[in-house]
Amino acid sequence: MAAPYTLILLRHGNSEWNQKNLFTGWVDVRLSEQGVAEAKRAGELLAESGLTPDILYTSVLTRAIQTANLALEVADRLWIPVERSWRLNERHYGALQGLDKAETLEKYGPEQFQLWRRSFDVPPPPLADDAEFSQVGDPRYAGLGDELPRTECLKDVIARMLPYWESDITGSLAEGKTVLVTAHGNSLRALVKHLDGISDEEIAELNIPTGIPLVYKLDEDFSPIEPSYYLDPEAAAAGAAAVANQGKK
Amino acid sequence: MAAPYTLILLRHGNSEWNQKNLFTGWVDVRLSEQGVAEAKRAGELLAESGLTPDILYTSVLTRAIQTANLALEVADRLWIPVERSWRLNERHYGALQGLDKAETLEKYGPEQFQLWRRSFDVPPPPLADDAEFSQVGDPRYAGLGDELPRTECLKDVIARMLPYWESDITGSLAEGKTVLVTAHGNSLRALVKHLDGISDEEIAELNIPTGIPLVYKLDEDFSPIEPSYYLDPEAAAAGAAAVANQGKK
Repeated sequence: MAAPYTLILLRHGNSEWNQKNLFTGWVDVRLSEQGVAEAKRAGELLAESGLTPDILYTSVLTRAIQTANLALEVADRLWIPVERSWRLNERHYGALQGLDKAETLEKYGPEQFQLWRRSFDVPPPPLADDAEFSQVGDPRYAGLGDELPRTECLKDVIARMLPYWESDITGSLAEGKTVLVTAHGNSLRALVKHLDGISDEEIAELNIPTGIPLVYKLDEDFSPIEPSYYLDPEAAAAGAAAVANQGKK
Repeated sequence: MAAPYTLILLRHGNSEWNQKNLFTGWVDVRLSEQGVAEAKRAGELLAESGLTPDILYTSVLTRAIQTANLALEVADRLWIPVERSWRLNERHYGALQGLDKAETLEKYGPEQFQLWRRSFDVPPPPLADDAEFSQVGDPRYAGLGDELPRTECLKDVIARMLPYWESDITGSLAEGKTVLVTAHGNSLRALVKHLDGISDEEIAELNIPTGIPLVYKLDEDFSPIEPSYYLDPEAAAAGAAAVANQGKK
C-alpha cells in the first residue's frame, strides 16, 4: 500500500502507582480507576476520529495492555491482531523502582532528581537482583538472558526499542495497516524523538500525556509528512503539564 | 519439550444475546454482566489451579476476546502472546442469526429446531448477504473471500477449525507451551469431538458449559492421556444442563 501511513501512539492511563506517586518502571502495576476511565475515553476519541487500527502493538506490562483492551473495546476493534514486546516497556527505573517520588526529590534534591528523571544518558543506580521489585525470575522475560535491564536511561530505551520499530512495526505500516502502539511515557518519548528528530537535549522537555491518542502521518520512509496531532489537543496540553509537574507534592 | 502437553479450553461467558435468548452465531455481541462475572471466575479458577497459560488463541468475536482478557487479567497473565482466527468462531447460524430461540422452537416445532441446533451435517438456511446480521463487508473477514460462510453445520465448523488446530495450535503445544483456547460452544465442541474421538451421532449430546476451564493432558500425538476435566466440575455439570435446556422458555 502507498504512503501516507497512519501511526497512532497511546500512553497508558493513570496507574495505581502513578496515584501513589511511586517510581514504577518495569513493576507490573495495574490501571487506577482514573486510568480505566482514560483508556475508555481514548477509545471514544479513536471511534470519533474515524481512525480504525488494523493491528495493535503493546509492551508486556499489564497497564499498557489494559489500556489497549479498554480502548479497543469501546472502539469496537477488539478483534484486531496484537503483538507484544518487552522492547515497548517503560524505562527500567533501576533502584528507584518502588520509591516515593516526592521523598526521593526531598532526599536527593531537585538536581539529582531531575537528572534521574530526564537525563538522556545517565541511568539511576541498578536494581539488585534480589530486590523486592526486581524482574529477575519473571517468566515473561525468561528469554531475555543478559538483555534483561537492571536500570535504563532514555538512551538505553531507544537502543532496545528502535530495533523492534524497524523489524516489526514499520513492516505493518508498509502493508498499509493503521498501527496502534500502546505503551509508556519513555518508550513513546523514545519513538517520538526518533520520528521528529528531536535532539538529546530537547527531548528532556517533551512530556506525553496519558490516554490521548497521538496521530502521525508518515511517508514511505516512515518520516512525518506533517506535524503529529493529539485527538484531544486541549486535554493533551493539560496532561503534558501534569506529567511535567510529577514529583512535586 | 516432551509431552504431556497441557491444553485449556474456555467457552465465553453469557452474552447479551444469550440473555435475550437469540441465535447469535457470527453476530458480534458482547458479554452480559453475568458473562463478565463468569470470565473473572474462570480467571480465579485458572489462578487457583496453578495452570499458567503461555499463549492464548481466540476467535475474532468480541465475546470470546473479552472473556480471555478478563480471565487473564484476574490470573495475572495478560501479557502472554495472543493469536486470533476466524476459524475459532462460533458456528455460523445462517438465517437463524438474530431470531428468538423460543419463537423459532414454537414456529418450526421441536424436531426441526433440534435438527438445526444439533444436526451434524444439516445447516440452517443460508443468511442473505443483505440481511441485517450478515457478515458480508465486515472488515475482519476481508481476506476470506469465498470462504466466508453464510451458514454452517457442525461438520462445516470442524472442516474450517481443524486446519488451524493442526497448523498453529499444536505447534505451540509441541513447544511445551500451556495453551489456552478461548472460543465458542460449537468451535469447542468440534475440537472436543476431534480430541475425544466422539462419533457424529454422540456429539449431539455433548454440551460445554460457559466460563469453566476444561483441561486436557495430551501425548506427543496430541491425543488425551487421561480424561479431560473441568476446573469446577460441579458448576460444569450444572452449566452443561443449562445449555441443553436452551430454547425452552
